[in-house]
Amino acid sequence: MRGAICVAVLLCPVIIPPQAAADSLPRASAVRMEQRITALSEFGANPQGGVSRVAFSQYDIDARHYVMTLMAQAGLEVSIDTAGNLVGHKAGLEDLPPIVFGSHIDSVPGGGNYDGDVGVIGALEVAQLLSDGDIITRHPLQMVVFSDEEGGLTGSRAMVGKLNEAALSVRSHSGLTIAEGIRAIGGDPGRLEAAARSPGDIAAFIELHIEQGGILDEQGLDIGVVTGIVGIQWWDIVVEGIANHAGTTPMNNRHDALLSAAELMLAINEIITSRPGAQVGTVGRIQAEPGAPNVIPGRVTMSLEIRDLSSDVIWAMFRSIERRAALIAADHGTAIRFEHIALYAEPALTHPILRQVIAEAANTLGLSNIEMPSGAGHDAQDMAQIAPTGMIFVPSQNGISHAPEEYTSAEDMANGADVLLRAVLAVDRGALEDPL
Amino acid sequence: MRGAICVAVLLCPVIIPPQAAADSLPRASAVRMEQRITALSEFGANPQGGVSRVAFSQYDIDARHYVMTLMAQAGLEVSIDTAGNLVGHKAGLEDLPPIVFGSHIDSVPGGGNYDGDVGVIGALEVAQLLSDGDIITRHPLQMVVFSDEEGGLTGSRAMVGKLNEAALSVRSHSGLTIAEGIRAIGGDPGRLEAAARSPGDIAAFIELHIEQGGILDEQGLDIGVVTGIVGIQWWDIVVEGIANHAGTTPMNNRHDALLSAAELMLAINEIITSRPGAQVGTVGRIQAEPGAPNVIPGRVTMSLEIRDLSSDVIWAMFRSIERRAALIAADHGTAIRFEHIALYAEPALTHPILRQVIAEAANTLGLSNIEMPSGAGHDAQDMAQIAPTGMIFVPSQNGISHAPEEYTSAEDMANGADVLLRAVLAVDRGALEDPL
Repeated sequence: MRGAICVAVLLCPVIIPPQAAADSLPRASAVRMEQRITALSEFGANPQGGVSRVAFSQYDIDARHYVMTLMAQAGLEVSIDTAGNLVGHKAGLEDLPPIVFGSHIDSVPGGGNYDGDVGVIGALEVAQLLSDGDIITRHPLQMVVFSDEEGGLTGSRAMVGKLNEAALSVRSHSGLTIAEGIRAIGGDPGRLEAAARSPGDIAAFIELHIEQGGILDEQGLDIGVVTGIVGIQWWDIVVEGIANHAGTTPMNNRHDALLSAAELMLAINEIITSRPGAQVGTVGRIQAEPGAPNVIPGRVTMSLEIRDLSSDVIWAMFRSIERRAALIAADHGTAIRFEHIALYAEPALTHPILRQVIAEAANTLGLSNIEMPSGAGHDAQDMAQIAPTGMIFVPSQNGISHAPEEYTSAEDMANGADVLLRAVLAVDRGALEDPL
Repeated sequence: MRGAICVAVLLCPVIIPPQAAADSLPRASAVRMEQRITALSEFGANPQGGVSRVAFSQYDIDARHYVMTLMAQAGLEVSIDTAGNLVGHKAGLEDLPPIVFGSHIDSVPGGGNYDGDVGVIGALEVAQLLSDGDIITRHPLQMVVFSDEEGGLTGSRAMVGKLNEAALSVRSHSGLTIAEGIRAIGGDPGRLEAAARSPGDIAAFIELHIEQGGILDEQGLDIGVVTGIVGIQWWDIVVEGIANHAGTTPMNNRHDALLSAAELMLAINEIITSRPGAQVGTVGRIQAEPGAPNVIPGRVTMSLEIRDLSSDVIWAMFRSIERRAALIAADHGTAIRFEHIALYAEPALTHPILRQVIAEAANTLGLSNIEMPSGAGHDAQDMAQIAPTGMIFVPSQNGISHAPEEYTSAEDMANGADVLLRAVLAVDRGALEDPL
């Protein structure tokens, strides 16, 4: 067990007494999981030690075949739905909707070996343990490997019936359009409705994933109980000043767009950080025009991203930023306008009972845990639209993700699989059917 | 005469009584000057109403021929020195060093019709008035049209013996190297030493030029008595933070290079403006990496330019900025370093007696005037290294320069030529020889 000292702004973890009662269920094999992660990392391995296994590439296709073999070994009957999702079926004792769990194996270009992969290898471990232990559930189970998570949550979006025509024609990193890519991995983009599930079709969806941030690692915690996947809003900010000669224009006669932009960046940071909570706001891109050392910038464009579990909080912060921008513009004789970019993602909350189920599973195992939002997007945010959804985080060393340096220890991966197994079985025992 | 209300931070103008005594010298023809400016603007005219007459281009060569014709008409004997400078000689009564005056006719790409041109047409007007009025001076006179001012003060730098080999191989906007360009306009880059003058060779150098800033226009003044040409120093500022996921990295765990850069930009502005004086400081160029809306910037590079008449002031301000940068970096866990770029220009002060001579000439003509630094670079800054130098500014409408919208009225051009004539004659009468 990791040390459980609470050091930062988030909720304090549940402290497990050293003699916490374990259960009699089988335990995940850290060795096997690490071997499989290593084997998986061969598909699309890059010289930096990570993978560039973008969806629909030959690396992705080969890795899917490898995973399908493992799924079959774990006693799952594998099919590919029309969106290209791999689905491993295991029958249940009763005629109930399935409990679904899984993640993805595609990567960003220049990515690491754990994002998505840990969830898939963890789900395989659960299936293997159930098979090895001859554990039969009431509910049927489905392990899912979602298609093209990194390119826009393609597989999960199709599974909730929301993958539209426009998305299908987007060109993916593989060079294929999403439609062509789905076909390349065995799907049928013309019959996506066959992959769609409706509310009630799924008893629960649970995803194991690496945190991709540094909270668990820094605080020495084992498990993150995800409270939801944050919503994300993007704006372009345009600051208009007056470009002029940097030598002949006195300081008191300038309308420097970059100076207004600098003030606004500090105001944004102040507004985001002066409110309690885990919301984040980022200016990641900036351009000043004309962009010469001897010309006062006449125009600046920059990006603004705000993320939070609550849309209301996101928009309240944005309105504060807008008000402050108006004051800054008036001060400097500049003009500042905000252009809202297409909605990136709505917030998705996890199910309160599943949070409780996951925390209890961790406690049973003597694993320190904490409730936390997910700042990154996941297939779980789509699945939450049609099913009670839970999400389990394991630590990312130094919080690094989407890079070859991404790392999660074998012990942490096994902890995640152990919690996933127990959460699945708790749902199977009727956790979601009981009144709170 | 323009209104003479003092409205800004600079020194108040000398107020001329409405009935100031004029002199009996001939007066410049505003009509002729405007006709010549219009004719000159045909060479390299662009659709926006300005000129793109970059040095060494065919437009430049053709315009030089036009000016040489006018120089000859004004009674000057024209030669081309080995640096490509046009020099119009007029004999004097005594064996004295020449009084030199002139400017340039090359433009920046997409430039206007007045920068440099007003000084050349004004110098021609002075030669024409002397010729028409049969005025013979004690000193020989030389009207100079400097080569390639906009590309690095090429002609004047050669005239003071400072044009080096490295500069000769720089490729100019014309497509030719400076050496090739000098050859194209009739010079001889292998014998530049023949163009070089030494201290004592020139009695005085006086340049008429448009202000290129908005001070005279805003304050309704006729003439700027230039106190010096500011020195210019350039630095690249590099801010190193840590690039990270904008969703999964809490606000209190960021090392955002752009946020440090924003604080530094405000600090720079505060340091520059909190000191009395005409110094200016500008951040004109900025780049944040990796530059994606959903990634915290890990590295920012930006430019810093500081200009002032005093190198000591420039470096004192820079050191304050460095100290503040260290505090900002410590606050945010970032690193900020400054890379000094090759010296752009040392400050060059005009001669105090020539300032007085120019102010008195303006006063005699009933023209309101003010002492002011030049924020832009000029051939005069080179010439000040070897000769007492004076500089006369006339208003730039709305302070616009290096753009097709550049404009100076015919009346203002004529005022400038009238002042130039009187300043030349005052030097000829021995103004610089008298004790103050």
